[in-house]
Amino acid sequence: MSIEAAIKALQSLYGDQVTTNTAILDAHGQNEAYFPVTPPDAVVFPNTTLEVSEIVKVCAANDCPIIAYGTGTSLEGHQLAVRGGISLDMSKMNAVLDTHTEDMDVVVQPGVTREQLNEDLRATGLFFPVDPGANASLGGMTATRASGTTAVRYGTMRENVLALEVVMADGRIIRTGTRARKSSAGYDLTKLFVGSEGTLGIITEITLRLQGQPEAVSAATCSFPDIESAVNTVIATIQMGIPMARIEFVDGMMARGFNLFQNVNLAEVPQLFVEFHGTPNGVKEQAETFGEIVSDMGGSDFAWSANAEDRAALWKMRHNAYYGQKALSPKKRVQNTDVCVPISRLAEAVMFAHAERDRLGLMVTILGHTGDGNFHCGIIVDLDDAEEMGNAREFTHNLNKLALKLDGTVTGEHGVGMGKMKYMAEEHGGALQIMVDIKKALDPQNIMNPGKMLPSN
Amino acid sequence: MSIEAAIKALQSLYGDQVTTNTAILDAHGQNEAYFPVTPPDAVVFPNTTLEVSEIVKVCAANDCPIIAYGTGTSLEGHQLAVRGGISLDMSKMNAVLDTHTEDMDVVVQPGVTREQLNEDLRATGLFFPVDPGANASLGGMTATRASGTTAVRYGTMRENVLALEVVMADGRIIRTGTRARKSSAGYDLTKLFVGSEGTLGIITEITLRLQGQPEAVSAATCSFPDIESAVNTVIATIQMGIPMARIEFVDGMMARGFNLFQNVNLAEVPQLFVEFHGTPNGVKEQAETFGEIVSDMGGSDFAWSANAEDRAALWKMRHNAYYGQKALSPKKRVQNTDVCVPISRLAEAVMFAHAERDRLGLMVTILGHTGDGNFHCGIIVDLDDAEEMGNAREFTHNLNKLALKLDGTVTGEHGVGMGKMKYMAEEHGGALQIMVDIKKALDPQNIMNPGKMLPSN
Repeated sequence: MSIEAAIKALQSLYGDQVTTNTAILDAHGQNEAYFPVTPPDAVVFPNTTLEVSEIVKVCAANDCPIIAYGTGTSLEGHQLAVRGGISLDMSKMNAVLDTHTEDMDVVVQPGVTREQLNEDLRATGLFFPVDPGANASLGGMTATRASGTTAVRYGTMRENVLALEVVMADGRIIRTGTRARKSSAGYDLTKLFVGSEGTLGIITEITLRLQGQPEAVSAATCSFPDIESAVNTVIATIQMGIPMARIEFVDGMMARGFNLFQNVNLAEVPQLFVEFHGTPNGVKEQAETFGEIVSDMGGSDFAWSANAEDRAALWKMRHNAYYGQKALSPKKRVQNTDVCVPISRLAEAVMFAHAERDRLGLMVTILGHTGDGNFHCGIIVDLDDAEEMGNAREFTHNLNKLALKLDGTVTGEHGVGMGKMKYMAEEHGGALQIMVDIKKALDPQNIMNPGKMLPSN
Repeated sequence: MSIEAAIKALQSLYGDQVTTNTAILDAHGQNEAYFPVTPPDAVVFPNTTLEVSEIVKVCAANDCPIIAYGTGTSLEGHQLAVRGGISLDMSKMNAVLDTHTEDMDVVVQPGVTREQLNEDLRATGLFFPVDPGANASLGGMTATRASGTTAVRYGTMRENVLALEVVMADGRIIRTGTRARKSSAGYDLTKLFVGSEGTLGIITEITLRLQGQPEAVSAATCSFPDIESAVNTVIATIQMGIPMARIEFVDGMMARGFNLFQNVNLAEVPQLFVEFHGTPNGVKEQAETFGEIVSDMGGSDFAWSANAEDRAALWKMRHNAYYGQKALSPKKRVQNTDVCVPISRLAEAVMFAHAERDRLGLMVTILGHTGDGNFHCGIIVDLDDAEEMGNAREFTHNLNKLALKLDGTVTGEHGVGMGKMKYMAEEHGGALQIMVDIKKALDPQNIMNPGKMLPSN
């Protein structure tokens, strides 16, 4: 009973679908966070749910850890093989299985990426709205309860996953939920697996809600003299019931990064980037009302456009934030962290981050999904500078502590992985033990992504 | 170790807060379904979370069942003391604890009813949208994952509960979630307790999302020659992205009930009752676009109004559906059941119900939250007529089987309780065992509402 025995058994069953090639192992041990490369002992590429079930059974029989792998874009080290074992690379299970246009839902395999899905849906007039920036796999997005720029309007993966097929830790295949839009029939297992980070089972099929492509879309940008006026604009906009599709905050340093990377000419002060979806009259009305709020709150440079190219350029810039961050100091690395607080505390939290940045002498960009109270700090660091790395850790730690003090969460959308595990006890208190009890009930051997999410794993 | 011993211990601790008065026991053993009166052995009225925790500890020490009780409006017998024990009446815990207008959320005790909450919120410009018809308690609505007429726009309790305080089966008090709008920090325990029907713990505090009162509201009615054209109108409306606040289907028999009870003059054919929320221009545009779809689909009698009194009268009539059903045959009783299917299968499901109604010679009204694919059948029966009661059971059974065949659920919003328990194995397959495992992990003594939801309970 060992990892080695599991791999031997898998090789005899699946031949070329199992690899121990060093380059492939290393690629699966990489991460976009700050953790050292931590490769698995083997990578297995299943083609079907039945194969996943068989593979899990072999691993269970040999106490071999199993880590589901999507596109590797996690920011908290979810995919690292900290206890060895196999990386289960879901990239071959990448079929869009069934599109139900009348019901506005779609059934996909977990290896489908969000861009692939939207490409596939193009002719239907429907789209899948959740957009975390990276072209992540829908399996990974489900497992981390991902969200992104459009969550303020369309919700996160929590609201957009209707049903799942999951392979449990003993290889059983179960289905949670149905294609009905709502149900009161029993415990909501779908929502239990959404955000479970591969620690309860392997997601092998996902039924997702879709949205109709809006008849009209417009986008706007505006700038503010300070953080409070930008955040107050967001609060007023939401309270007015303006159904914003996106409302993104960008701080002065992030604006500078965009200027450097994109060769644009943003004022290097707090900004909001927004998008409206609706009818042609509706988006015009929304944009005008929003413009009035911006003006009331002391904002300026309000510009809106219904031009598709202007809009594409704006969101391309936003999605290239990482390169904008890099452009601020090309030889350094970017460490991204996210917290989420009640929106009334958002200005306080962002100002705290600026004060800590200054106190610790760090370069930090802030941008965020302000409609949700969720923001990201990109800390630009030299990995070889021990003092700077220590300051970055202190910055992140203090920000997490503040989020909890403000009745928020240490991660709005990146997930726990390894990076946020140490805050679970403080965030959840006695509820953490309930999570541990559920994990023990469903994966008593702790073979499903061990060493992640729960400190006891 | 007995129920009797538990009640004695509770009486010595809580005196008058514990009653064994027969009238009160009987009132707590009543139900709006078709189950016989099933009173508990005692009713206990806690005032605080700490008292709930102490009461649960006493019950756990004595293996005494505990049934949380809200307003008793369940339609599936959730509150019945099928194994005896105590009914924990939450009506004294009815405070609105904290309203956060900037964050658009509110913290309430479980005994607060939805009408009480909206009365309390009136001055804030905010409202709580979930509306199941009955003036239910928010604790009960959370526990049954309730929804109602507005779910198509604002979601069900699933989408509207942000955080909970729960007393577990051993008396531990835990908190799930935070006031942050989203989180990726750990298993979604909030969603696990929403819809758990008192089988995992007692909900003692609820944090709810609120909505801004829309600037303008308009309502409309229209009628159709057949069910398909009504349902196709709903599908087209949703695909067009018209953000309907309500879209209710009423069949010819239900229309007749309204005519009898309300003295109105509806055509006794399929109808849609709809409501639009938005800006003054927005609701006008929505109503006009909807009117065009109605006309394209062969509908008629389209009438819309922005007048508040007309609208109030329409929804009062809708909420009085029960009395409309009663008016069809005043000496009989109404048995309500609900299923939910993918919207593309809704016409098929409603037509099946009509065919079964005719085949079995029953009087049945159908009305439903068609935007979600959820509909209710009101079967009008003589409780003393064994043949009719048998036919009603057959009708309900066949409807549930059809819903499952159509990739739907046996209950969209009423919950499992006792009535839908026998379908859990078929609806969930292997996932049922996962529910059983979770129940065993969190309530190993099975004292939390035993005999409900899971056949193993």
